[in-house]
Amino acid sequence: MVTVLGAGSWGTALAIVLADNGHDVRLWGQRQEQIDEINEKHTNEKYLPNIHLPEAIVGYTDLAQALEGIETVILAVPTKAIREVLQRVRPCLKQPITIVSVSKGIEPDTNKRISEIIEEEMGEHLQDVVVLSGPSHAEEVSLRHPTTVTVSSKNMEAAERIQDLFMNHQYFRVYTNPDLIGVEIGGALKNIIALAAGITDGLGYGDNAKAALMTRGLAEMARLGSRLGANPLTFAGLTGIGDLIVTCTSIHSRNWRAGNLLGKGYALDDVLANMGMVVEGVRTTKAAYQLAKKMNVDMPITNALYDVLFNGKDVKSAVDSLMARGKTSELEDLANISL
Amino acid sequence: MVTVLGAGSWGTALAIVLADNGHDVRLWGQRQEQIDEINEKHTNEKYLPNIHLPEAIVGYTDLAQALEGIETVILAVPTKAIREVLQRVRPCLKQPITIVSVSKGIEPDTNKRISEIIEEEMGEHLQDVVVLSGPSHAEEVSLRHPTTVTVSSKNMEAAERIQDLFMNHQYFRVYTNPDLIGVEIGGALKNIIALAAGITDGLGYGDNAKAALMTRGLAEMARLGSRLGANPLTFAGLTGIGDLIVTCTSIHSRNWRAGNLLGKGYALDDVLANMGMVVEGVRTTKAAYQLAKKMNVDMPITNALYDVLFNGKDVKSAVDSLMARGKTSELEDLANISL
Repeated sequence: MVTVLGAGSWGTALAIVLADNGHDVRLWGQRQEQIDEINEKHTNEKYLPNIHLPEAIVGYTDLAQALEGIETVILAVPTKAIREVLQRVRPCLKQPITIVSVSKGIEPDTNKRISEIIEEEMGEHLQDVVVLSGPSHAEEVSLRHPTTVTVSSKNMEAAERIQDLFMNHQYFRVYTNPDLIGVEIGGALKNIIALAAGITDGLGYGDNAKAALMTRGLAEMARLGSRLGANPLTFAGLTGIGDLIVTCTSIHSRNWRAGNLLGKGYALDDVLANMGMVVEGVRTTKAAYQLAKKMNVDMPITNALYDVLFNGKDVKSAVDSLMARGKTSELEDLANISL
Repeated sequence: MVTVLGAGSWGTALAIVLADNGHDVRLWGQRQEQIDEINEKHTNEKYLPNIHLPEAIVGYTDLAQALEGIETVILAVPTKAIREVLQRVRPCLKQPITIVSVSKGIEPDTNKRISEIIEEEMGEHLQDVVVLSGPSHAEEVSLRHPTTVTVSSKNMEAAERIQDLFMNHQYFRVYTNPDLIGVEIGGALKNIIALAAGITDGLGYGDNAKAALMTRGLAEMARLGSRLGANPLTFAGLTGIGDLIVTCTSIHSRNWRAGNLLGKGYALDDVLANMGMVVEGVRTTKAAYQLAKKMNVDMPITNALYDVLFNGKDVKSAVDSLMARGKTSELEDLANISL
């Protein structure tokens, strides 16, 4: 028995994987109407259209009931809601739980990673935190398309338990990686680059420009990550380049779609109102901008995007200024990753 | 005055860049009808549809005329034709020339890089070889969409001269990188991964599977490259991940398109006949397969593709066997890049 907190597209898709693997799954959400739909029609149309949910998935709106007797909890709520949800989880618990974090982001102002927020909020109620990340659009997972992800934790035995929980031979492969910082930072920062890639696509700049932007984006992700203690090799893996590729090139990506609308000239407020789902990259841009300043790391794409999102800079001049630097040596740029 | 040998899409697109930069360009091709079209209509419809060529580009079919008094030659012919073309170039020369190689591949059996083939064929007729590579679909360059590439050479002064020749402030940015081996190996091997990515797309496996394949593909490119003496950082740059992204995700890519048709069940011979252009990845797969064996480097994607292309293995079982390895640690895979 496993509980998934958050009945959005990713929480629901992971509940499907667990149910396919033979587990009973409690899927908790806040909206009674949505949970009724899950229990009565076995669908979650708003988030995973045209997907029939296995009957081993049972919806809950009552948090205490959803957590009763549970040892492993998948935390699949927007990063903005994590502290509040965990503050409601704590009083429901009689024993420590393992939390699997599947959200991606860095908290603005505190600049904390999700696993750090979870440790801070849960204290003695926490057994282990495991992070699950990688190139994995929820829609494709729910269609059982082949998908590979990585799990990481300070306690690799816990990571291996979660690997066994999710791994199956049909469509869901799970790798382990002990570099918790790199796995979390890669998953968070790629949303920034996806927003920027959406903008260049929205401006009609083409695939050559997007590939160059993604290449330089990965370099700046790795620069900040390695300064924060990550293993730079992790950025060459599933949670780095893999997730970056899928987020920048797939129509399923919300961050890319939001950027694309910005590139087409829509105003930020209209874009965010229009998405109907959370665009994690906006908050993460703020956090990464602050971190880069504090750690004195060169992040030109993040800085340009910050100016667009928070200082009202025109998207076209922001992108053009990125393209218009003097001639330069490529390895000088890359060498700052400090491999 | 610069001469471009090869009036395919890439040679013609680079001739446009040079003409835009104020140079007179001689564009040499073998087919009289095509060269007449270039000189009379200022178009090259088969390779760059709907593009008007600058009048500074003049077509030649006579090689001696095209090379007369020329110091810099852009070599833009299919890798298969390079030796034969250079054997015809030699007797036309009165002084050594600098050759800019813009083709991508490794020669089967000899396992030589393009710059090595050029050195071997040109001998004393050669001043310098410079390689130009990066994420640059010809179609987009001809539309003046923003594009960034890298130049490399054993003689970085020559590379910087070529950087100045091609660089402009409107749409074409040129970086330098002294790692000639890494630049050439990245450009060659990405065509293998693009074929494989086309196959998974043709099979309908989705974006998650493709991103995982590209991630593991980059790792095996870097493994072979670093064994051959490349700087592994180069694979994180424009000629590595950048070119890999554009080749695997753009509809413009011939290698991807060929793989896509294979994934949809078409026979190899039909696919190659259908393309009408050279699919460099097929020959490069053979060369990389031989190199990996000789150097004892683990290249599972290259090996699986070799079985499909040269041993008649079914595409679906080849891809499924790639996905179906046991559970594994991600960093163990990546660490073999020997950074």
